[in-house]
Amino acid sequence: MVEITKAHVGFLGLGIMGEAMARNLLKSGLFASVKVWNRTLAKCEALVSEGAQCAETPAAVVESCDVTFAMLADPDAALAAVFGENGVLSAIVPGKGYVDMSTVDEVTSTKIGEAISAKGGKFVEGPVSGSKKPAIDGQLIIMGAGDKDLYDLVQPAFDVMGKKSFYLGNTGAAARMKLVVNMVMGAMMGAFCEGMALADKAGLEQSALLEILSLGAMANPMFALKGPSIMSRFYPPAFPLKHQQKDLRLALALGDSLNQALPVAAAANEAYKNAKAKGHGDEDFAAVYEATQK
Amino acid sequence: MVEITKAHVGFLGLGIMGEAMARNLLKSGLFASVKVWNRTLAKCEALVSEGAQCAETPAAVVESCDVTFAMLADPDAALAAVFGENGVLSAIVPGKGYVDMSTVDEVTSTKIGEAISAKGGKFVEGPVSGSKKPAIDGQLIIMGAGDKDLYDLVQPAFDVMGKKSFYLGNTGAAARMKLVVNMVMGAMMGAFCEGMALADKAGLEQSALLEILSLGAMANPMFALKGPSIMSRFYPPAFPLKHQQKDLRLALALGDSLNQALPVAAAANEAYKNAKAKGHGDEDFAAVYEATQK
Amino acid sequence: MVEITKAHVGFLGLGIMGEAMARNLLKSGLFASVKVWNRTLAKCEALVSEGAQCAETPAAVVESCDVTFAMLADPDAALAAVFGENGVLSAIVPGKGYVDMSTVDEVTSTKIGEAISAKGGKFVEGPVSGSKKPAIDGQLIIMGAGDKDLYDLVQPAFDVMGKKSFYLGNTGAAARMKLVVNMVMGAMMGAFCEGMALADKAGLEQSALLEILSLGAMANPMFALKGPSIMSRFYPPAFPLKHQQKDLRLALALGDSLNQALPVAAAANEAYKNAKAKGHGDEDFAAVYEATQK
Amino acid sequence: MVEITKAHVGFLGLGIMGEAMARNLLKSGLFASVKVWNRTLAKCEALVSEGAQCAETPAAVVESCDVTFAMLADPDAALAAVFGENGVLSAIVPGKGYVDMSTVDEVTSTKIGEAISAKGGKFVEGPVSGSKKPAIDGQLIIMGAGDKDLYDLVQPAFDVMGKKSFYLGNTGAAARMKLVVNMVMGAMMGAFCEGMALADKAGLEQSALLEILSLGAMANPMFALKGPSIMSRFYPPAFPLKHQQKDLRLALALGDSLNQALPVAAAANEAYKNAKAKGHGDEDFAAVYEATQK
Repeated sequence: MVEITKAHVGFLGLGIMGEAMARNLLKSGLFASVKVWNRTLAKCEALVSEGAQCAETPAAVVESCDVTFAMLADPDAALAAVFGENGVLSAIVPGKGYVDMSTVDEVTSTKIGEAISAKGGKFVEGPVSGSKKPAIDGQLIIMGAGDKDLYDLVQPAFDVMGKKSFYLGNTGAAARMKLVVNMVMGAMMGAFCEGMALADKAGLEQSALLEILSLGAMANPMFALKGPSIMSRFYPPAFPLKHQQKDLRLALALGDSLNQALPVAAAANEAYKNAKAKGHGDEDFAAVYEATQK
Repeated sequence: MVEITKAHVGFLGLGIMGEAMARNLLKSGLFASVKVWNRTLAKCEALVSEGAQCAETPAAVVESCDVTFAMLADPDAALAAVFGENGVLSAIVPGKGYVDMSTVDEVTSTKIGEAISAKGGKFVEGPVSGSKKPAIDGQLIIMGAGDKDLYDLVQPAFDVMGKKSFYLGNTGAAARMKLVVNMVMGAMMGAFCEGMALADKAGLEQSALLEILSLGAMANPMFALKGPSIMSRFYPPAFPLKHQQKDLRLALALGDSLNQALPVAAAANEAYKNAKAKGHGDEDFAAVYEATQK
Repeated sequence: MVEITKAHVGFLGLGIMGEAMARNLLKSGLFASVKVWNRTLAKCEALVSEGAQCAETPAAVVESCDVTFAMLADPDAALAAVFGENGVLSAIVPGKGYVDMSTVDEVTSTKIGEAISAKGGKFVEGPVSGSKKPAIDGQLIIMGAGDKDLYDLVQPAFDVMGKKSFYLGNTGAAARMKLVVNMVMGAMMGAFCEGMALADKAGLEQSALLEILSLGAMANPMFALKGPSIMSRFYPPAFPLKHQQKDLRLALALGDSLNQALPVAAAANEAYKNAKAKGHGDEDFAAVYEATQK
Repeated sequence: MVEITKAHVGFLGLGIMGEAMARNLLKSGLFASVKVWNRTLAKCEALVSEGAQCAETPAAVVESCDVTFAMLADPDAALAAVFGENGVLSAIVPGKGYVDMSTVDEVTSTKIGEAISAKGGKFVEGPVSGSKKPAIDGQLIIMGAGDKDLYDLVQPAFDVMGKKSFYLGNTGAAARMKLVVNMVMGAMMGAFCEGMALADKAGLEQSALLEILSLGAMANPMFALKGPSIMSRFYPPAFPLKHQQKDLRLALALGDSLNQALPVAAAANEAYKNAKAKGHGDEDFAAVYEATQK
């Protein structure tokens, strides 16, 4: 493989996260070119106006790129981009690398990795921790697994998109770590929202609770960031609630397959489902607060 | 009342927290004298050797002090110290103040406050957030409620024991806030331990999970402090698990009285009960990790 | 003590259950007289018109009766009837018996039993299983504990009010058994309602689910009775939801004191709290179905 | 299609349930012949000695039968029997019927139904309620969905295997109903076991609890049957715990897809996972009692 910094790189999937990540690759100036694709092609326009190229299919991206990154909405989208018509797989040849940064379950990641390998390509899974703002700021945490050579090669790209990356082992390890992290996040947010709801019912200022929490051992950026959103009950989506719920579901399924009971996460998952049923699936996951309300 | 900085102050209850708090009052040199009492009197010896006086009953402390602070194990202990033979109440006269910093439920706090007031005393409840180390370092968060004049008067003492104090309203408000904070803490620790357990079952290094969490929006001192304890499955008690479980119980009871369902906290509470049943009640509350194990 | 069948018997508390139970004692014709009391005295009128006597205080009932039964709403009401002004206790003398059939926690029951004993009276706790209809039909299940002589003496009265009675041991045992039974009932109803909700969401007739359940190993009168109520979302109170929730709370507290984690019951308890928050506390406990709805 | 009572019928899958069901078809004498297949062919021997024929592949059964029934362990086994080498699908031609009585999720059932239909065959899904004993006694409850003509045709066979059958709608409806029923069963058993555990901890005889439950509105065959098993902590498998847990998982996934929060079932599911982790996956599902123990 060529040095990544002289490479043509591709990017599939320009959702909230993907667009910001692709833009950071583009703005870095490290690469010979950046070619993007999105299922709805109109989403490519902004990046094209900033200097990216655009292709009409995943295959067209892979064909002209040394390494292609992807950030897709869910396992189905990740599978479709690889195995669908004019998908990644049809253009993979020896020497090409594919780095899927979507949050997908291990089965999906393994299936993609095996298919890429079978055609002589190299595969890294690289799901991230962090949502819209860290994606924009290039401050994501990247969990990598799979082909170690490719992982090392794309390190400069990871450095552009994230503040730290980890190599966790064979394909699947990063998918599992990502689920663990997001499971903790979902349950922690569920606990926080119950505290906010109880404070309110108990005649206490939610702002006082936030300040007290900010001074103690539990102080963390998430509470500080999401607290005001909860207080105003207005939840612009950084990480959509339905995706948080999906990750809880997948984490619980992982626990299921490993005989690990996870009762706190399971209770939180039901709260997210309730919030989804109430119509908050597309809002930020902090909207799980709504599940604490009538 | 006299200026607190020329006052004789008392301290009831020299457990893990109380001894450290009383020592900080003593070391501050702000007060005319510090007189302590503990149910097991031998616990007073260390402080006496450092300059404190010791009394044999709560009443004896209150009699010779302008303001008496208390940090007792639970509502029963708090009630016994006030209403028991030679208790606080028997020595309260107009002009004296009583500041109970124990974690007690609102009913208990209200009962104590009303009794003190009925005898002409002033009452502040001042439960804290933070465990052994912040107590030692004078870095507790103090939640105050009750008599505003007494609250203002003892501010210098709060400044010695804590890094910040809040006045939250009438007696009971601080008890409720403390429960809310500790409920969030208990459920958050439950979520964290499930993540640590799932990581381990999934073949991931728990240390990698800790580092990833430390870099993201969930980063907080508690995970950093308790993570290594969980990894080693050794839990020296900073905040005993049985007390965390008690606070979850009281918070759920508060939710019950206010019609606030709290399913995530309820699931966490059962995990703490399981850990207690396994014999970890006297260890640190991070031992709820044991509930995730067979 | 006299033979119960020649005795003057009293009855305190004429709520949904109590009135039916007192009426059965009256209708049996077994007793020399039946004297009733209710906090709202107007509730006595119907029974008086049927031949009962009425007294203005619990003490007045106990004074003129050999054995007094009680069926009060909750622990506070049970305590007030005994320890309040003109309460049971003030009229207890050696030779008199008091049988409290209210659902109360063990602490309450023990406190009452000890007070009665201290004045030379005999005490039996006799909480029941079954709600309005079994009370009317004299088909309650009676869980007895406490003084075995009094238990044996009042057996004919239990036979009139119930279809079976059990002697379970010292005072407190029946309170505990009642809580266990009602905890199973509350969680079982919670499970049932989730099934009904899922059937509906899944495009299945709830009536088909009811029929299938009625034919299998889970077939039970409660599902058959409450199913139609749930289908119509109309819940006339046989056993008010707020009382079911109270019993779950007390059962969980019992588990708490015994280090028994009860995660399924805890999850059900939160569902009842949610239904209560939605305004269904005074409806039948089958209204926990509403917690499954948005 | 021929009348079922003159038909050659096949049966795939001779596990605990399947063998009993196939035997009932055979013993009824209603059919021209009964041909069986099992992945481990040795399991066919008993039935062959009773008059059944045996085939070496699912295809060989279907080829010589008008209607083939199947009772397979899980979705993977159900899919393998149809889509695998020498599977059902390879022998389906117009005029043949396939009735899958396995408990599978809707996706699996729909996939099988569509494949059978595409080759001109007719498909009915017919999952059952009831375990070993009802299977032996021909007392299963059969939930049917799919092709109404085939459903009507096989009614005599359903009458031999079950005591009642229901037609619930298009393919998938029975899979969903089965999950709902088993979800209620799993959560109800979870509630029951918590009651048994709490009784024991509270110093009450579990046998007394069983008798009290047997007399009230909750009385049901399952408690009566499983209670003694729980008391002895010996759980010979009628319905293996791991299958109950699988059904809870699938029911929760169904709720997930329909935005129906199911917190009681979710808590029960975690208890089953805990029991599985403790090594009780192959025992009867009543072994979820073990999750209540340390």
